[in-house]
Amino acid sequence: MQTIRTIQAKRNGEALEPDAIREVLAGYTAGTVPDYQMSALLMAIYLQGMTPAELAAWADAMLHSGEVLDWSHLGIPTADKHSTGGVGDKISLPLAPAVAACGVAVPMISGRALGHTGGTLDKLEAIPGFSVGVSNERAREIVARHGLVLMGQTVQIAPADKKIYALRDATGTVESIPLIASSIMSKKLAEGVDALVLDVKVGSGAFMKTEARARELAETLVGIGQAAGCSTVALLTRMDRPLGRLVGNALEVVESIATLRGEGPDDIRELVCLLGGEMLALTGVSTSAVEGHQRIARALDDGSAFAKFRSLVEAQGGEVACVDDPTLLLGAASRHIVRAKRSGVVCAINAEDVGRASMRLGAGRATAEDPIDPAVGLEVLRTVGDAVAEGDPLVELHVNRADRVAEAEALIHAAYTVGDSPVAPMDLLVGRVSGEDS
Amino acid sequence: MQTIRTIQAKRNGEALEPDAIREVLAGYTAGTVPDYQMSALLMAIYLQGMTPAELAAWADAMLHSGEVLDWSHLGIPTADKHSTGGVGDKISLPLAPAVAACGVAVPMISGRALGHTGGTLDKLEAIPGFSVGVSNERAREIVARHGLVLMGQTVQIAPADKKIYALRDATGTVESIPLIASSIMSKKLAEGVDALVLDVKVGSGAFMKTEARARELAETLVGIGQAAGCSTVALLTRMDRPLGRLVGNALEVVESIATLRGEGPDDIRELVCLLGGEMLALTGVSTSAVEGHQRIARALDDGSAFAKFRSLVEAQGGEVACVDDPTLLLGAASRHIVRAKRSGVVCAINAEDVGRASMRLGAGRATAEDPIDPAVGLEVLRTVGDAVAEGDPLVELHVNRADRVAEAEALIHAAYTVGDSPVAPMDLLVGRVSGEDS
Repeated sequence: MQTIRTIQAKRNGEALEPDAIREVLAGYTAGTVPDYQMSALLMAIYLQGMTPAELAAWADAMLHSGEVLDWSHLGIPTADKHSTGGVGDKISLPLAPAVAACGVAVPMISGRALGHTGGTLDKLEAIPGFSVGVSNERAREIVARHGLVLMGQTVQIAPADKKIYALRDATGTVESIPLIASSIMSKKLAEGVDALVLDVKVGSGAFMKTEARARELAETLVGIGQAAGCSTVALLTRMDRPLGRLVGNALEVVESIATLRGEGPDDIRELVCLLGGEMLALTGVSTSAVEGHQRIARALDDGSAFAKFRSLVEAQGGEVACVDDPTLLLGAASRHIVRAKRSGVVCAINAEDVGRASMRLGAGRATAEDPIDPAVGLEVLRTVGDAVAEGDPLVELHVNRADRVAEAEALIHAAYTVGDSPVAPMDLLVGRVSGEDS
Repeated sequence: MQTIRTIQAKRNGEALEPDAIREVLAGYTAGTVPDYQMSALLMAIYLQGMTPAELAAWADAMLHSGEVLDWSHLGIPTADKHSTGGVGDKISLPLAPAVAACGVAVPMISGRALGHTGGTLDKLEAIPGFSVGVSNERAREIVARHGLVLMGQTVQIAPADKKIYALRDATGTVESIPLIASSIMSKKLAEGVDALVLDVKVGSGAFMKTEARARELAETLVGIGQAAGCSTVALLTRMDRPLGRLVGNALEVVESIATLRGEGPDDIRELVCLLGGEMLALTGVSTSAVEGHQRIARALDDGSAFAKFRSLVEAQGGEVACVDDPTLLLGAASRHIVRAKRSGVVCAINAEDVGRASMRLGAGRATAEDPIDPAVGLEVLRTVGDAVAEGDPLVELHVNRADRVAEAEALIHAAYTVGDSPVAPMDLLVGRVSGEDS
């Protein structure tokens, strides 16, 4: 009866009491609240929304449905980053070691690729031997020793979220900011970190297509984090074109290692410094995000970030030879150049189309059961603002399945807009949301 | 995938195509659409509503989820009545025989008591031997012979509605006019009748407390009926006080038989004539509802309605001795008089409180599994407008469980408002909704 009253209250647009939220989520996790009641409640939440107080209680109950990690034994601050997902977004791979090199521990729990966006776990698994299936106990050991871990969600982390996520997928309740935000934050807060930086993507290749929606999500995420006592900041960053030049699992590891060696594309390096700078500032290791930015840049340049990554790969069973010589990771059977159909200036590269091209080559998943081919993907040879002549190479595809080339090539042509006028450069950073604003 | 798209469309406030409605309801009936998807869709319908075209398709798919009865072999028109439920509402018992006596067949499928309102099936079962569990085949025989049948919903009638009704109860989606209306109409239209009269109750003892909500429901019901090609009219009638003087199962049979003998309280007789008159007019047996009203009154007075009822009771296995001498039905162990606490005029009798008093004595059900005691109930001795002196009898309780008397007495006192000024009489009929209005 309490569950029905809870559904009715939300249906009527009332704010739920924390006790009611805890009861329904505990019941759902335990199996005493059936799927059909939860899905009715989720649809009511989708259509009626949740207040900040409800969201705080909802996320709190979700994160406490499982184990909450504790890093107090480390004696150093902890932080993590979450990205809402983009094409070519390999930021976690250089970021976590760079932040760890600056003295902030990063116990990072990541996800897998789905649809046109990649997943950190799939990228890491492109390194032979690398194991993302780390128990919480082993994670504690790795973090204590190396200052970071890059792992998958274990069954002990926020089981309510896992169950609700699958149910939302089947009941048309995915695209709800309160439900998206509480899902993200319940998993991230269960990591037990002191500080959290959120990279909320905006644009054609992002889940949130408009700045207004992205800002709403960012504010909701930051509100949940602050309510839970976790220092939280969100950056709104552009996801119209792919991040960096390489898209695909092994290829993104290659670009990450370049970034960790002080090389790598400007946008990747800048985003690592921006997000890492916030993490250092939030944990008090730097006096400001600007100073943090400088320290991250130094860690990329002085080899300390690279050394952290190398020791992490070793700790999680990966072949360090591949870190020392990333060309060992490149094993696609053939390559194929996609060439410009006309001359002009590259005005836009639609990130979603590029992501779909990479997915069709085998680098991503259409459904959660699809296998991943780590070797395939693509390299962006001409980016926005570059002049091209007809027939110039735009993109190089790394291919194992020749039957997918035509489809991928068509998607690349669809992605590229070649025009006649030069394009004004756009800032990567669109906005920043912190608890102090509200 | 189609189901998820259907849920998303309704969630977004779009009108669903008839094909999408048919597919989701067929899938739910067959078990391929799970409860958790249907409950999300029901919540979306609750909050976003349905257009008349969607409602027509929804009700049509529900009614065709099972068997649709066919009375074309009878060679006479068919009609039925549905009431949204009230206290003391025994109208079906005298109405069906009266209409049948005028040459319109009435194959009536009724429900059971729940909450403070009674159910026709429970009342009929107060007649020893009377069986409401009639197969569709046997129903055809009884109607062919006697012109009416009074039966329960068989498994073959609108199975989608049965499943959805149970799900709505558990998921906070009961109080939705589109869902209420399509549930009522799918069952009634599955009876395959030519005409349908709906008695939509308004007031403190009704499901719809306000005239505006009752009119909205009435218009929705009539719209579905007309779209399905069934001549449909709704009367809005007052349900502030109990209908008639007797409340309880055997007691309501007694009052029904009195009405069928041309006796019985004025409000019962008037409502039977109003509703029956509409049924005769809709089927063309009378030229107007007014003329139909007169013919029903004659059938009550000339013994033809009573004879129909008597033969029906015999056909469905009931003891006709109880029809000939209804006092045989009165078997409660004791009676208890509730007396006025002050002198004055009875200004109001809250029907819901009276219904709850009767329910507490054992005449109704709090949950669908509760047993019914046919013998218990109450008689209203002083009604609205009557003058009373302190200590005068207000209500006589018919009791089998003495431990429930105090509670029932308290509810009767709560139900009665005794004031000082005379009260203006109120019309039973509040409004009328027919297809021509819209």
